[in-house]
Order: sequence, then structure tokens, then C-alpha cells
Amino acid sequence: MADNGSPEEFLATAVDAAKKAGEIIRQGFYQTKNVEHKGQVDLVTETDKACEDLVFNHLKQHYPSHKFIGEETTAACGASELTDEPTWIVDPLDGTTNFVHGFPFVCVSIGLTIGKVPTIGVVYNPIMDELFTAVLGKGAFLNGTPIRVSSQTELVKSLLATEVGTKRDKLTVDVTTNRINRLLFKVRSLRMSGSCALNLCGIACGRLDLFYELGYGGPWDVAAGVLIVNEAGGLVYDPFGKDFDITAPKVAASNPFLKDAFVEVLKQTE
Amino acid sequence: MADNGSPEEFLATAVDAAKKAGEIIRQGFYQTKNVEHKGQVDLVTETDKACEDLVFNHLKQHYPSHKFIGEETTAACGASELTDEPTWIVDPLDGTTNFVHGFPFVCVSIGLTIGKVPTIGVVYNPIMDELFTAVLGKGAFLNGTPIRVSSQTELVKSLLATEVGTKRDKLTVDVTTNRINRLLFKVRSLRMSGSCALNLCGIACGRLDLFYELGYGGPWDVAAGVLIVNEAGGLVYDPFGKDFDITAPKVAASNPFLKDAFVEVLKQTE
Repeated sequence: MADNGSPEEFLATAVDAAKKAGEIIRQGFYQTKNVEHKGQVDLVTETDKACEDLVFNHLKQHYPSHKFIGEETTAACGASELTDEPTWIVDPLDGTTNFVHGFPFVCVSIGLTIGKVPTIGVVYNPIMDELFTAVLGKGAFLNGTPIRVSSQTELVKSLLATEVGTKRDKLTVDVTTNRINRLLFKVRSLRMSGSCALNLCGIACGRLDLFYELGYGGPWDVAAGVLIVNEAGGLVYDPFGKDFDITAPKVAASNPFLKDAFVEVLKQTE
Repeated sequence: MADNGSPEEFLATAVDAAKKAGEIIRQGFYQTKNVEHKGQVDLVTETDKACEDLVFNHLKQHYPSHKFIGEETTAACGASELTDEPTWIVDPLDGTTNFVHGFPFVCVSIGLTIGKVPTIGVVYNPIMDELFTAVLGKGAFLNGTPIRVSSQTELVKSLLATEVGTKRDKLTVDVTTNRINRLLFKVRSLRMSGSCALNLCGIACGRLDLFYELGYGGPWDVAAGVLIVNEAGGLVYDPFGKDFDITAPKVAASNPFLKDAFVEVLKQTE
């Protein structure tokens, strides 16, 4: 098959892959309660690996000359450099802690960059059956319906999402909770869902007004979500006002109105 | 109609009321994005009031001699004392901030106490179409399927839920984030969903292992959830080891294995 598909073809192929991976996630999600802890860890690893294999095989079949970056592959083979080549960046299972516990925020995330520019974004939560999609220049959608970021202009009325990450050394935990402390005086309330990709989609569809996360896994957590936010009229940026780098483990997102005020507060917590 | 129905009849009546109120919530939920902020506040108030009227009218029609305690009624008429009479305790819309923002954790909560003992519990999330139900001594259910609390025995592998509340004075915020800081060293991760009743249901179905909240609205937030947790094999208790009081704005919940260790950690943060 031809590697030079149209963006719409790329999207359709990615959606197919996401739906199939979603079925594997859904099956595992309802099994985790019935296995012992050792079994749960195995189930996560197995599901992660099975989903990544499925997504990569599906995409490679259609686009054999494209490049691929995935969480599992990178963990096994070391960091993959992002080049100008068409590159699929895949998180086969975002929200692994939620997956183990049966908390319904889990998803598969599939992004395509061309010339390092995010061009296709697909995030699918198979438990809530929510499919977020975007094509560069063509808008963002939730289950086929156009979505927009919120129109909120005031931090004090904004709903903020973040995560506490997995590091539990004293310095990281103190910095994390001190930052939350500072932010609570500025915003309406705080949510933690446990999925970076779904938090970005929450910004895109206006459920959330503000999101930041530091120290997540890698570009596969954000590659699809960045485009979905942008195409929904939002911005994805460095939390502390530097140039945004998709390979750096720090991200913030909001509508355009809130960005400057949000970065200003975040800078005070750096 | 007779006031002395069977528990199963009480449950069926409460489920009817919850489903009808859920329809009102669902309609409002998808409208909030289209109204300005002043309109959003009005919409919350209107939805809250319409749901409480609907639920109370429905229940009063069936059980005219029963007592009723609701968030809206209490806000208007002052605190209602809980007596030994059959008393319906209703939160017509739990998760009002989520409702305004379109974050999908909203619910109606309906509890019945007889002799001050929680006897019927119904919590319905109309956005995710999840109906949690319990009858004293008859188990707890999610959409008709029996549910159980998690079997987790170690804090360090536990998923914790809490909320940051609405008070933003320095003392409250500092105590809140210091408590979170202490707990993060003890548990696996943290979730904040924005609904007290749904957090209790999360404990009941094992999605969450630990939950505490301080400073929420009143007994309507927990009256149904307490029974649902108990009937799913869990415990609802005072976060600091005192006797649990359904009218005090503090609650903790978990499976029986985790209670002592959880209270021990919470006591250190009192």
C-alpha cells in the first residue's frame, strides 16, 4: 500500500487501530479485579505490549516506510529521535494505574508528526467510549462532533487538572504539593484523573480550563493530545514560559485567554 | 398509597426518582457550555431546585408521612434534625462544579434512614449512566451487577481519592495540601473527581481503595453512599478514629483491611 495517504486516510487508519486496541484494553479493564497483584502487573504489561504490537502492525501494514516511536519500544530499545520523517508516536495504554484499579480514565493515544509537526491525533477511551480526533487544520472532534476549548477568561473561575506523578522522594513530593498549594488560591477547583492524554482532551472539549503536568513518561503521552487541543482552539505550552518541546516531560494547556496568567502563576512555583 | 412499603418498594421508588432527576441533570449538563457565567450559576440553581422538587414530590406521593432532608430545603429552612422516622436524605445534584464545567462526575444521591439506620441508597450518574444501589442487608449493585470493595491490603499499593473543597483561606488550604503531602508518601496515587457521593461509590466498586473528605456540604452527600459502601463489604468511618457521625462534615472509607493503617496516617495530619 502507498505510504503517501491523505490526512483523512491517515486518520481513518489510526482510528481503526485505536478502536482495535481499545477492545483489548476494555477486556483487560474488567479482568483486573479477578487477578492477584502479580497478575495485575503482568496484565498491564501484557495489555500494553499487545496494544502496541497491534497498533504498530496495523500502521506498518499501511505505511511501511513511516517511523514509529512507542512507549514499550523505547523502554526496550532506548530513546528514539524524532526526525522530519512521518512518525507515529503511540502510547498504547495511558493511565496504567487507572487500568489496574478499574478507574475509568484509560486510553490509547496515537499521534502522527510530519516534519516534526503534529498532523494526526487520536485518543480513544474505550471504557467511556469517547473518541477524540484531530487532523491538522481541520478541527477537533469528540465522537464526530466538533469540540472547542472553554471560553473562560478568569483563573479564579477555572477548573484545573494536574497529576502527582509516580516519584515519591521528599523533594519531588514537596515541590508538587507546594505548587498545588499556590495554585489553589488562584483557581476554582482541582481534578486529578490519572491520564495525561485524557487531561489534554479535557482541555480540548472545555471540561477542564487549565492543565499542567511535570515528569510524565514521554512524547507518546502528549503527541496526539497536543494537536487535539490546538485544533480545538487551545494552546499547549511550556509551563514556565519557555519554548514548548514535545520531548521534554513538562506540559501545560488551556484556552488562549488563560495562558499568560497561568504561566505567570506557574513560574512562581518553578 | 401506603407508607409502609417493603425495602424493595422503597428502592424501586427511589430509583424511579433518581432516573427522572438524572434526565434533568443530563439536559443541563450539555447546555452549560452555551450559557454565560451568570447563566451557568442560574442553571446550577435551577437544575438543583428542579431535581430536588422532582425527587421530593415523587417520594412524597408514595410516602406522605415520611420525613425529608435535602440540600436545597436545608439551605432555605436551616438544618433539619435527623429523627428515628423514615427520612429521605437527598442531594439532587452532587458535583455542581463538574456540572458547570461539563466534567462527567455528577450524580443524584438518595438515601433513606429508618431509626437513623441507612436502609436504602441510590446514587445515579446520568452522564456515565451508572446506577449504584443498595438495600440494607441485601448487597450493593452497579447497574444491577453485584459490586465489592477492593481486596487491597497495603496502603502503598492503594489508590486514594480526596477533594480540595471550596474554602480558600490560608489555614484551610495549608492544612489540605500538608495532608496530601503526608499521604503521598504512603499511597500509590491520588485522584480527585469532584463528587463525594461518587467517590464513596468508587470505594464500593473497588475503583478506589481509600477516600476521605473534610468540609463537604452535609449528610445528603454521604447518606446513600454510606450504605452502598457497607453493603459492598466496606467501611465508612471518621477520618480520625472517632465515632462516625453522618451529620458531621468529615468522612473516610475503605475496605476493612486498610482502615486502621489509613486512620493512623490521617491522625498524624489532624
